[in-house]
Amino acid sequence: MLRWLILMPKILVTNDDGVHSEGIKALAAALASLGEVTVVAPLTEASAIGHALTFRRPLRLETFGPRVYAVDGTPTDCVNIAITQVLDGKPDLIVSGINKGWNLGDDVTYSGTVAGALEGALLGIPSIAVSAARPPEGCEFEFSAKAAALAAEAVLTHGMPKSMLLNVNVPRHRNKGFKVTVQAKRNHVTVVSERIDPRGQAYYWIEEGENDWEPHDRSDYQAVRDGYISITPLQPDMTAHDALGYVEGLPLVTPAQVR
Amino acid sequence: MLRWLILMPKILVTNDDGVHSEGIKALAAALASLGEVTVVAPLTEASAIGHALTFRRPLRLETFGPRVYAVDGTPTDCVNIAITQVLDGKPDLIVSGINKGWNLGDDVTYSGTVAGALEGALLGIPSIAVSAARPPEGCEFEFSAKAAALAAEAVLTHGMPKSMLLNVNVPRHRNKGFKVTVQAKRNHVTVVSERIDPRGQAYYWIEEGENDWEPHDRSDYQAVRDGYISITPLQPDMTAHDALGYVEGLPLVTPAQVR
Repeated sequence: MLRWLILMPKILVTNDDGVHSEGIKALAAALASLGEVTVVAPLTEASAIGHALTFRRPLRLETFGPRVYAVDGTPTDCVNIAITQVLDGKPDLIVSGINKGWNLGDDVTYSGTVAGALEGALLGIPSIAVSAARPPEGCEFEFSAKAAALAAEAVLTHGMPKSMLLNVNVPRHRNKGFKVTVQAKRNHVTVVSERIDPRGQAYYWIEEGENDWEPHDRSDYQAVRDGYISITPLQPDMTAHDALGYVEGLPLVTPAQVR
Repeated sequence: MLRWLILMPKILVTNDDGVHSEGIKALAAALASLGEVTVVAPLTEASAIGHALTFRRPLRLETFGPRVYAVDGTPTDCVNIAITQVLDGKPDLIVSGINKGWNLGDDVTYSGTVAGALEGALLGIPSIAVSAARPPEGCEFEFSAKAAALAAEAVLTHGMPKSMLLNVNVPRHRNKGFKVTVQAKRNHVTVVSERIDPRGQAYYWIEEGENDWEPHDRSDYQAVRDGYISITPLQPDMTAHDALGYVEGLPLVTPAQVR
């Protein structure tokens, strides 16, 4: 029994929809059989928050139950507060989600759910982000949580290379199992709508734009459309290695010309 | 004269330190000779905000002078409001900065300055992020602005491949001209300090951790340390292509086992 306790993996669960969201509860429940689960999540919804860290104000940590905590900050804040204030060091695994709505293609760069796992990757912790389809009738978190637990179990058993994360997106229908994918490219469209307030002043809503994805057989977007659970390895290096030659070819100046 | 007006490039300037920051003023001034400069920047400081979009509340747009506007949101918001509400469509170039403090290595994923340029890249607009050293005695914005203008001129003249941005970091001393670099890897350290408020309750400050960079001859971090202006091509694809084989090798289950 003592040996079992010592070997039990520590799993940190976070998200961007907040500690009270249905998705994080389903996720924590599904992971409970794999290890000791601790939830440290934003107090309120922090969607599309990206990989933001709160430097300009202090953070508070609230306890909501046994091993359930909330931070009045971002998913990235939560991971850092969890490791330094809640857990006794780094967990064996971080799982972020389940987000209500996919995080596919270039949109991963906006995602708070992915950012929680990205922070784990930067800290050298095996990390997984999980997002579910958001159909009009609501998310199917139980099935997504089962998929997340299967990915988590595989990672706990087989390890993960350093400085990476898995981005898991679960379709609602036509499930055909996991498919290993690459991040899709989206042709971005900006949609901003103007409204007028009762005082006659304009204000603006940023809308989630239309999806216009570049076709790619192996993309995360194509996989979920085809009914697969998409699983994409991501890493924080954004270097455009293919473009190094382009930059070398730019007529950039000698030191004497700059100063 | 008419022809010159028609051909004058449109340059959008944004940042994360806010519309009133010294860095954005130096940048806008240095770019004025290259085209028609419009500033659309956050109303207040939005550092370490990452690639965040504001979906949950509407945004306001304020005018602060001829072609100088502020949005009560993030750099990403600013780019979207600028394109739809301020400019007549997409500009020819976006330059984000000048940030007070470098944006190097994995830290680019947190950076609001880089996010402003990343949003441009996602929208298919040639984009540049510019950051200056933050020595104890303050930033040297004028020199950094000159470097930014040289990079901007090269891009306006020679174009830029689609869906990428340039991340420019300017050292304070020992300038040896531009060096083309790759994003450095940082071994992350989390530093969170606990304090006690007058009511006896704990609160937490996230601190910018110690830098522990993995050595790399061609990294952005090494370049600025050596006195070069680092110029790194970045792109939004975070796929860990080298890890696709690892994920393929995970014992992920068949559809029947998931549902």
